[in-house]
Amino acid sequence: MKLLTLTRDLHRRKARERLGLFVAEGIRTAEELLRSELSVEGALIAPSLAADPRGAALRDTLDLRKVPIQEVSESELASAADTESPQGVLIVARAPDRQLAGLAIRGTARLLVLDGLQDPGNVGTIVRTAAAFGVEATLSLPGTVDQWNAKVVRSAMGALFRHPVISATWDDLDEFLRRTKAEFWGTDGGGDPVDDNLVIPPVLALAVGNEGAGLSEPCRTRVKRLIGIPLTQGVESLNVAVATGIILHRLRS
Amino acid sequence: MKLLTLTRDLHRRKARERLGLFVAEGIRTAEELLRSELSVEGALIAPSLAADPRGAALRDTLDLRKVPIQEVSESELASAADTESPQGVLIVARAPDRQLAGLAIRGTARLLVLDGLQDPGNVGTIVRTAAAFGVEATLSLPGTVDQWNAKVVRSAMGALFRHPVISATWDDLDEFLRRTKAEFWGTDGGGDPVDDNLVIPPVLALAVGNEGAGLSEPCRTRVKRLIGIPLTQGVESLNVAVATGIILHRLRS
Repeated sequence: MKLLTLTRDLHRRKARERLGLFVAEGIRTAEELLRSELSVEGALIAPSLAADPRGAALRDTLDLRKVPIQEVSESELASAADTESPQGVLIVARAPDRQLAGLAIRGTARLLVLDGLQDPGNVGTIVRTAAAFGVEATLSLPGTVDQWNAKVVRSAMGALFRHPVISATWDDLDEFLRRTKAEFWGTDGGGDPVDDNLVIPPVLALAVGNEGAGLSEPCRTRVKRLIGIPLTQGVESLNVAVATGIILHRLRS
Repeated sequence: MKLLTLTRDLHRRKARERLGLFVAEGIRTAEELLRSELSVEGALIAPSLAADPRGAALRDTLDLRKVPIQEVSESELASAADTESPQGVLIVARAPDRQLAGLAIRGTARLLVLDGLQDPGNVGTIVRTAAAFGVEATLSLPGTVDQWNAKVVRSAMGALFRHPVISATWDDLDEFLRRTKAEFWGTDGGGDPVDDNLVIPPVLALAVGNEGAGLSEPCRTRVKRLIGIPLTQGVESLNVAVATGIILHRLRS
């Protein structure tokens, strides 16, 4: 299949899952991808890439690594891009096959559980934060936006290529919690305050819920404890990526 | 002027500044706006609004308050909307006239200074966080995206209607710092770690910089101290809204 057609096709989650491929857009994300261990399958390039010095260097790297390239017009690139500024480059890469059963936990560890998060920007930002604070892995539970969605990939700023985000069912999670003896907590505005008095178990999996609805029922029945951030006034709330950042900062192992 | 034409015109920052008006999109933002003290000038409504129970209730409130309404088609509404899902309603409201010279500081206070932030989603999320953590006011310095940009308004989730965001020049800031004896700090990845040992002055203005470039030169020459969040590995960085959230949480007065 022509690369342009393939790239357009990869807008659909079903196509990404069937083919095990995803698209990275823009120069910085492409650079991060090439620095990672992920397998790069091909690149769509428009003339504007060469106008940027970093873009020209990126093109050299792609040539050096013999990545298959299809040259397209700016409008063809735009037709295959998800974001508004793909900066002249779209890269097709192979999504790593990460299984929860293969995740080994030794010593102290933090895991993040995404329970129905829908906004790709939030999920990408949260993955970036999890990677920055040494979280072992992020588990993506049913109802969460696909981690290989182009906007998630972009917002994660390369973190997705190094930090393992693993899709899991509730049964997978139960099995994982049994096997690793991880304690399972959830975040909720009304939970115990995240302050200096919080005693944190050595192996902790922390769930964050949907932007509007919070934690799901299957999640609430499983968590041992709820924690949250007290706010100055009852009427305000925090963005879920900001709240997760504050809590992960506090939980740093 | 017809409301539809006016609303389309308010996409441009220049038009917003000239008219002193802005547009709020979507049901939740409209609800927050109607709960605030801001003056509502008119509403564009498409048939889809009535399909949502909260939308129907919103329409009743608008009618009760005798807000001028123009009924438009879904495609007309879309032509005037900035976001992808305006949910059948766009509201034109008057931007409050907030001046730094009028800002009084008593006792302990935190102020946030936005130094060239460009992403509307980040700025809206930061304003929401500042409001939630009791920040006195947010100052928007040159180079920062307009606070009344539709995406900023949407991401702030109503916080912009209560929390004062004040546009200021560097001269305004100098005058403000002199008058209030506020200490001026900046955030930087390499700054002193934000931890329990940090001694925080009673009146503190904290600057956060551009997503890519960080603090500007005029800002760096003015700050007395840089603070930052140590990360697990040197290669990672945090999203600016997440980093600001973690620091504001630590600085809570």
